[in-house]
Amino acid sequence: MTDTHAISDDVFDAASIAARLTHEDVADNVEVLNQLTAVEAAEVLALLPTERAVGILDKPELLFGAEIVEALPRPIAVPLIAGMSADMAADIVQQLEDPVRTELMQKLDEASRTAIAGLLEYPQNTAGSMMTTEFVSVPANWTVEQTLQHIRQVERTRETVYAIYVLDPLSRRLVGAVSLRRLISGEPTANILVLAAERAPITTTPLADREDVARLITKYDLLAVPVVDKAGHVRGIVTFDDIMDAIIEESTEDVQKFGGMEATEEPYMQIGLMDMIRKRGVWLCLLFVSEMLTASAMQHFEGELEKALVLTLFIPLIMSSGGNSGSQATSLLIRSLALHDVKLSDWWRVAFRELPTGIILGSMLGLIGIIRIVLWQKLGFYDYGEHWVLVALTVGAALIGVVTFGSVAGSMLPFALQRAGFDPASASAPFVATLVDVTGLMIYFSVALLILRGTLL
Amino acid sequence: MTDTHAISDDVFDAASIAARLTHEDVADNVEVLNQLTAVEAAEVLALLPTERAVGILDKPELLFGAEIVEALPRPIAVPLIAGMSADMAADIVQQLEDPVRTELMQKLDEASRTAIAGLLEYPQNTAGSMMTTEFVSVPANWTVEQTLQHIRQVERTRETVYAIYVLDPLSRRLVGAVSLRRLISGEPTANILVLAAERAPITTTPLADREDVARLITKYDLLAVPVVDKAGHVRGIVTFDDIMDAIIEESTEDVQKFGGMEATEEPYMQIGLMDMIRKRGVWLCLLFVSEMLTASAMQHFEGELEKALVLTLFIPLIMSSGGNSGSQATSLLIRSLALHDVKLSDWWRVAFRELPTGIILGSMLGLIGIIRIVLWQKLGFYDYGEHWVLVALTVGAALIGVVTFGSVAGSMLPFALQRAGFDPASASAPFVATLVDVTGLMIYFSVALLILRGTLL
Repeated sequence: MTDTHAISDDVFDAASIAARLTHEDVADNVEVLNQLTAVEAAEVLALLPTERAVGILDKPELLFGAEIVEALPRPIAVPLIAGMSADMAADIVQQLEDPVRTELMQKLDEASRTAIAGLLEYPQNTAGSMMTTEFVSVPANWTVEQTLQHIRQVERTRETVYAIYVLDPLSRRLVGAVSLRRLISGEPTANILVLAAERAPITTTPLADREDVARLITKYDLLAVPVVDKAGHVRGIVTFDDIMDAIIEESTEDVQKFGGMEATEEPYMQIGLMDMIRKRGVWLCLLFVSEMLTASAMQHFEGELEKALVLTLFIPLIMSSGGNSGSQATSLLIRSLALHDVKLSDWWRVAFRELPTGIILGSMLGLIGIIRIVLWQKLGFYDYGEHWVLVALTVGAALIGVVTFGSVAGSMLPFALQRAGFDPASASAPFVATLVDVTGLMIYFSVALLILRGTLL
Repeated sequence: MTDTHAISDDVFDAASIAARLTHEDVADNVEVLNQLTAVEAAEVLALLPTERAVGILDKPELLFGAEIVEALPRPIAVPLIAGMSADMAADIVQQLEDPVRTELMQKLDEASRTAIAGLLEYPQNTAGSMMTTEFVSVPANWTVEQTLQHIRQVERTRETVYAIYVLDPLSRRLVGAVSLRRLISGEPTANILVLAAERAPITTTPLADREDVARLITKYDLLAVPVVDKAGHVRGIVTFDDIMDAIIEESTEDVQKFGGMEATEEPYMQIGLMDMIRKRGVWLCLLFVSEMLTASAMQHFEGELEKALVLTLFIPLIMSSGGNSGSQATSLLIRSLALHDVKLSDWWRVAFRELPTGIILGSMLGLIGIIRIVLWQKLGFYDYGEHWVLVALTVGAALIGVVTFGSVAGSMLPFALQRAGFDPASASAPFVATLVDVTGLMIYFSVALLILRGTLL
């Protein structure tokens, strides 16, 4: 694992790499292949035993799965796709373009093709698109021993056998779930349903968002959650490891979106320069255009600025304080909404907490700001003019107003976005800062007009 | 689940709540108890069957576990703590204060006390502090059938039985790991080691950070990872569900820290006002004091400002663009470092990517800025003076400089923090913005001096 980087520097030798890979864990193989080009990786993959090659393609950590499949000779690619778990195979097929896609699908066996086509129908990031169709289900009239026997037979072909779903023998509806640990302790001749939990099994629907599935799995500590359609039939299961990958991906997305850019799935070093520019540039330009309102606001107050140039000295300080307090409030509420700690209808409760919080925080900063001006004036570091006391008061009062506005606006933004049907996590720090900057300037100049009219203004 | 809120509004009746809870899932019980005060919750818990009460205390979602245990009569609390999984019990005991803590520990049975005391020795968020000591291990000379028989006996007292650890019968060192799914398919008379994976089991150490454990579990799709000490003995195992909770907690912390505040574990509504002020105020004040450098910078350039007041109009626009591009770069690199997509030694590769990225993004914004000034001037919306062309050039050039600096500084900050031994996630958006604001002003004024000397300046 230490010198995987070295591979791409040496002369590329597919056979020797393939030989080395068979002695390592599949997870480590993925890291080695990620260092190669898709064509090189395909060459290596073609030399590996089918089971291992399938295991590698099944790993969500593999970066260029679709490109590798495309680079593989068709007769090798088809059995690999057929051997993969349906959810991962669907992920790859989705990324393929025609004619490769149609060609591959046509050559697949009936069962694999149906399973993959079924999954492709569900929108991305839903339970339906993540579920695996390879799970264990048995009719409710089976015994414990029959079930165990069945599991022993199918174990190799199922993604997980730790949860067994019990179906009504006639309607094939889900009637219960049994864990493997309970099964092995059960009386062999007993009916399988004896071991099922008393309560109805926790289930989800094909169109449920992956975040909701994650909440179910973590709340109930499940190994998998069955995806049940309206008719009560189990269409597949979402396993804990797929959810764990989804949670990590989601939190990367959240941090990137909060940073003010479009989320990206590839690792930093793999993003093309133009792709990177696009993902960052769109937001940067949008924010820039909105932020132009600050220039308009300043132009509007040009007369005041000319009379009291001393006011400009504190513009960056006051604006950034509003942005910072807004960014704090937004980050708090994005997570609270995501974790369902607060609901959409709680917005007024939150506003009533942020108001005093903002006033207190603003007063703290205001006090520090006033002390700074008094100190600089008294110690002779700078002369803020004959009305320096009023200038200090203006800065202090503006800070209270701007920080309070920042806290309240920053906390309300995620609610507003969710209410409007967007992801609350789209409320990025730069977004809040821009919102608060323009208003912050208006607050500052209004306070200045109020306090300084008749003296400086 | 829908009307749990109603409980706290009704007259509190512990007996009727307890009766209702026994018909629901433990995970739902936790939600009900979280709505009550610790004293009320303790009253309800005391009325529940021991197994259910233990199940509730074992849930990491329970908010005031320690307070509830403290409010319970000692004779009830002791068997509950003893029944809990050791890692969760240790979490609660850790939060108790003396004399309750010592008193409880003394009354515990020997085995529970030793297990809890052992876990308490490990620092928070390490594998040692999260591991459970209730796992299945068997000597390497056992058969498949012996192992199965053993699991049937101990199943009820183990957190997980899906991974079985095989120990050398003499040295008790870990020699292999067998999954339950392989075990049930195994030949009953075969030696247990036949089923173990060829490669040595994936292990971690007691002092490993929970992020590293999470990486192992997700990379290798494990149900649990054994925590092995220097002597090769298994001290406990960390299970996937504990890690999932940790990942979610960690990503909440990351977003909050990125928002520029101290991370908080409680849900938003449960944080006390003073606690909230403290967690946000400390950072806000620190950032405010640093941002005061902008005032100093402006004071330094006061002469220039007086001569060219038009320059002040674009200060917020230019500063915020630097902050935004910095925030994007920081969010990208924080996650890349956390996911080990880039290593500390990659810093120069990253810098060499951010440099062209920043220049291109800055040029885009600069162009938009110039177009805006030209339009306003030509359409007569505003008069930027006779040297308006030079002013537009100054703004455009400053934007290139500031955005480039923002991208490079924002991307380097997480590296610098990690290098200095801090969490790279401490590089918050406000932190970056503050860093870029001060430098941004200097860049702007320097560019202005260069372009406008002899005309406006």
